[in-house]
Amino acid sequence: MDQRVLVTYRVRGEAATIAERAAALAVEQSVEMPLAAISERSVLEEIVGEVATIVDRGEGVFEVGIALAVATMLGRRGGEAGQMLNMLFGNSSIHEDVTLWDIAVPAGFAAGFAGPRHGIAGLRRRLGVGSRALTCAALKPQGLGPAALAALASRFARGGIDMIKDDHGIADQPYAPFAERVPACAAAVGAAAAQTGHPTRYAPNLSGSLDDLRRQIEVARKAGLDTVLIAPLVVGLPAFQMITRENPDFAFLAHPALAGAARIAPALLYGKLFRLFGADAVIYPNHGGRFGYTPETCRAIAETARAPWADLVPALPVPAGGMTPARVPEMLAFYGRDTMLLIGGALLAAGPALVAETGAFVRQVAESSDV
Amino acid sequence: MDQRVLVTYRVRGEAATIAERAAALAVEQSVEMPLAAISERSVLEEIVGEVATIVDRGEGVFEVGIALAVATMLGRRGGEAGQMLNMLFGNSSIHEDVTLWDIAVPAGFAAGFAGPRHGIAGLRRRLGVGSRALTCAALKPQGLGPAALAALASRFARGGIDMIKDDHGIADQPYAPFAERVPACAAAVGAAAAQTGHPTRYAPNLSGSLDDLRRQIEVARKAGLDTVLIAPLVVGLPAFQMITRENPDFAFLAHPALAGAARIAPALLYGKLFRLFGADAVIYPNHGGRFGYTPETCRAIAETARAPWADLVPALPVPAGGMTPARVPEMLAFYGRDTMLLIGGALLAAGPALVAETGAFVRQVAESSDV
Repeated sequence: MDQRVLVTYRVRGEAATIAERAAALAVEQSVEMPLAAISERSVLEEIVGEVATIVDRGEGVFEVGIALAVATMLGRRGGEAGQMLNMLFGNSSIHEDVTLWDIAVPAGFAAGFAGPRHGIAGLRRRLGVGSRALTCAALKPQGLGPAALAALASRFARGGIDMIKDDHGIADQPYAPFAERVPACAAAVGAAAAQTGHPTRYAPNLSGSLDDLRRQIEVARKAGLDTVLIAPLVVGLPAFQMITRENPDFAFLAHPALAGAARIAPALLYGKLFRLFGADAVIYPNHGGRFGYTPETCRAIAETARAPWADLVPALPVPAGGMTPARVPEMLAFYGRDTMLLIGGALLAAGPALVAETGAFVRQVAESSDV
Repeated sequence: MDQRVLVTYRVRGEAATIAERAAALAVEQSVEMPLAAISERSVLEEIVGEVATIVDRGEGVFEVGIALAVATMLGRRGGEAGQMLNMLFGNSSIHEDVTLWDIAVPAGFAAGFAGPRHGIAGLRRRLGVGSRALTCAALKPQGLGPAALAALASRFARGGIDMIKDDHGIADQPYAPFAERVPACAAAVGAAAAQTGHPTRYAPNLSGSLDDLRRQIEVARKAGLDTVLIAPLVVGLPAFQMITRENPDFAFLAHPALAGAARIAPALLYGKLFRLFGADAVIYPNHGGRFGYTPETCRAIAETARAPWADLVPALPVPAGGMTPARVPEMLAFYGRDTMLLIGGALLAAGPALVAETGAFVRQVAESSDV
């Protein structure tokens, strides 16, 4: 079996030396030693990376296509997320002029990974939302205790929002331990949802080691929840792969914390890798907010997350940062309806008018989804 | 308790706007919402990040010092590695012009972390090496089966090397499952060490989820080993923290895979963070090899790893990449003796002369350590 993943790297270089660099990259991401010192034929033929393509993109940027052996990325149960990233980019991440740009995988590759268990269709079904875009608010600031967070969650739910997530900084700190805040917020959101008749979801943030993640998701399940927030690069990709694999009843909302530094193309990171390892929805910083992703990058993230790939269902793009009710028409014209708009500070800044402001946001999204 | 970590970021900016950027950074890495919308006094006083210093380093680079609350970085058992990195750099990693540069921690901060359990002194004691520099070789290429890896390990050990590590790409793949190769290599190295009289260590590479790491380290322990290789950013920081905490009898050799992209200053990453989370020795790419770290960066990594910090014992710097016996005098003049020189391809390229070449390397290190 000589199955290969075709990996695309963007490399800053020069025409005169790029072929040599490409060959070095292929070796670095496989055997990492002088080929002349390898005598085993099977290793030379089946393990050593192979340069497939070199394309000059202009301005000193080259796209180098390297075929890496799937066999190097396997653990005892098939594909292993950490080892996969190790082989795609482990050492080459240390080259500042190399970016991991894209991957193409053979048929059946995704079998060892959870992929999105619910994806866009599953989230729509659970939220009872047929075709309009979805809405999400965030519980902030960290430092609030469980009762205050629950009260805030209740207000967002009464405003009619689809999903309420923890701020990603709220983990398991002494001021709001997971085991106290999650039942409190779940109860508050459940009560508000019973009043509104809209099945608003609360998505608590999972953190810590795999033991912690397992304990926390059990607390969430017992509290009647079925959605969680998780930052794959904070908890570690192997833990993310395990927790999604073990909990097919849960939907996973992935957060980009620590991802920005990864020098992995955003569309690949959110739209393929996080999706492969189990994310049903992927949060990323929207253009025009606090972060520097361009509109082109944001469009690529959303399109990649939804596009057919590796036999995975589409994942829901969740652009975040700088969202306001006034931006909703622009955002939906840009992204389309298979999107969840995440709004943070703007709702919180409404103070006593939070419920009304949330309702205005929700209505704006419903109206703008009709175009 | 208002304990703070003082975090230094390097920010590319302009004098006219840097104060505003610093304030935004302080908010981003704490409450991540408009301060005007926070009514709780305890949050404003104890949780919101505070700008401590702004220093113009020239050429558009500023060092911004932000005091972040220790409380935000805690889990149920004290400091939690993933959450700590989330609060230090989670969202700000997405700003391409921000680098996490350094941290200063309050007394007692390291209590929740393993730190190096053995460090330089412990490794020297185990290897029976009083004052000279240490030597390390790598089993390559991946793709070899357990018997071939064991034979190679035996040859390195007969050459008198101090430590033999797996190539970081050798994980738990079907061609060399951990449970087969580790006992084979351990036995081979043990037998060779009995012949040479030198207590050469074999350090297998741990990979996968926390369940896998625990299973693998137990296999290693049963095979009579007490040292392992691990890539903290591949396995995930929470898993790294747990496995070091749970196995105080083991020494941990940290590998930099995936670290280069982190846009975290190398001296901080290897010399403080990996050390805090449990690394006894830290591998990093040497200057003049395949990677672009400058001599200044490499010196900073080594000095930081050894310097007194947070009540942790010194960790052993392990420069790697492009090492040859001929470079040994230069390397030891540069780094000093409290170093382990890692040599890879150069020994493997010796082919049939590997044992002799290893011996020459080992002797060169002993002689050059005397200066």
